[in-house]
Amino acid sequence: MAEMKKDMNVKEISPAVIKRLPRYYRYLGELLENEVVRISSKDLSERMKVTASQIRQDLNNFGGFGQQGYGYNVQYLYNEIGKILGLNHTNNVIIVGAGNLGQALANYQDFDKRGFKIVGLFDVNPRLVGISVRGVDIHDIDELPDFIKSNDVKIAALTLPKQHARQMAVELMNFGIKAFWNFAPIDLNLPENVIVENVHLAESLMTLSYKIHSELEKEEQ
Amino acid sequence: MAEMKKDMNVKEISPAVIKRLPRYYRYLGELLENEVVRISSKDLSERMKVTASQIRQDLNNFGGFGQQGYGYNVQYLYNEIGKILGLNHTNNVIIVGAGNLGQALANYQDFDKRGFKIVGLFDVNPRLVGISVRGVDIHDIDELPDFIKSNDVKIAALTLPKQHARQMAVELMNFGIKAFWNFAPIDLNLPENVIVENVHLAESLMTLSYKIHSELEKEEQ
Repeated sequence: MAEMKKDMNVKEISPAVIKRLPRYYRYLGELLENEVVRISSKDLSERMKVTASQIRQDLNNFGGFGQQGYGYNVQYLYNEIGKILGLNHTNNVIIVGAGNLGQALANYQDFDKRGFKIVGLFDVNPRLVGISVRGVDIHDIDELPDFIKSNDVKIAALTLPKQHARQMAVELMNFGIKAFWNFAPIDLNLPENVIVENVHLAESLMTLSYKIHSELEKEEQ
Repeated sequence: MAEMKKDMNVKEISPAVIKRLPRYYRYLGELLENEVVRISSKDLSERMKVTASQIRQDLNNFGGFGQQGYGYNVQYLYNEIGKILGLNHTNNVIIVGAGNLGQALANYQDFDKRGFKIVGLFDVNPRLVGISVRGVDIHDIDELPDFIKSNDVKIAALTLPKQHARQMAVELMNFGIKAFWNFAPIDLNLPENVIVENVHLAESLMTLSYKIHSELEKEEQ
């Protein structure tokens, strides 16, 4: 019965809350690293710079709070949020484009922590093929269809030049890829059932540029 | 008089519109690459998957539209939006943390295009110091204060481990850095007048994880 109720609660979590979960997860992880066992909504709100009432509303979705005044059980909340985010599963990932960014991602330790296992890198450049990055081999792009099939890969990180990204995404989709972590500075325009999470570095850089020049103009006035 | 009016218009652009500008800029840049001279709000709306009325509202902030039915002058709009974003200025940037991600950023060609000039990389690792990436030297972290001063650097990209990022940011701020492009998976918590643009890769990865597992659960039902 308790289990049923928990499951029901889980299904009711709103998209707005879901969007905030990765940040909660990051802060709770920091607290665990600092061996904090319990934290009040007030303390957490000061760290995260959101209101305590927002935190209470958000985290009450997951239970894990003792009597008033005791605060949240950090480990419990961390685990529950991790489950919602699907971090308790393991997924095989390939990185398509083994240039600097692709290799940086292959070295990115958070992949492991979040349940993502990089099983292969791929590139068209024959000078890169055969090299291994953190124990993961760089393969020729022609090996993609067989590799995806035999390694049960559903996720691809795209770190290739933008002029090739859209076509490659369509090919990968046809080979069985269901989700893309896209670093190419374009929108992939794939069917709706394909998952795309974009990291648009150029847009982030332009936002930074805008903020800097607004600030400089303010100073000049 | 026309100049005055334009300046007034520029100041009136709302934050919501500003936030959408980098994406417009990206699409207009793509059109220019494909030698498209004019585009209607309808065509642009189909490409960008936003409503034509949203596009008309947003872009009318910048003028650059001919008579009804003629569409927008792509080059003109591209230039105007670029000016608003401050991309017509050049800024010196340093990269602090010359590991894989730092080196990937140093190789990132969009920096140049957006008016950002990487003048130095910095690291504590003596094996990296002295190496050059795309013509830019990796310096010892001890050289930071002098380098920032003598090269008039106001912007730093932070690509170093999270346990060092906050302290380094405070030091850099004291050396004269006014804006951070932060890749460390933490919030820097700097004074309000310091500009911070975060790229939280881990949070993006968790969002991807959430989307994948929601989709898989849907398929199982």
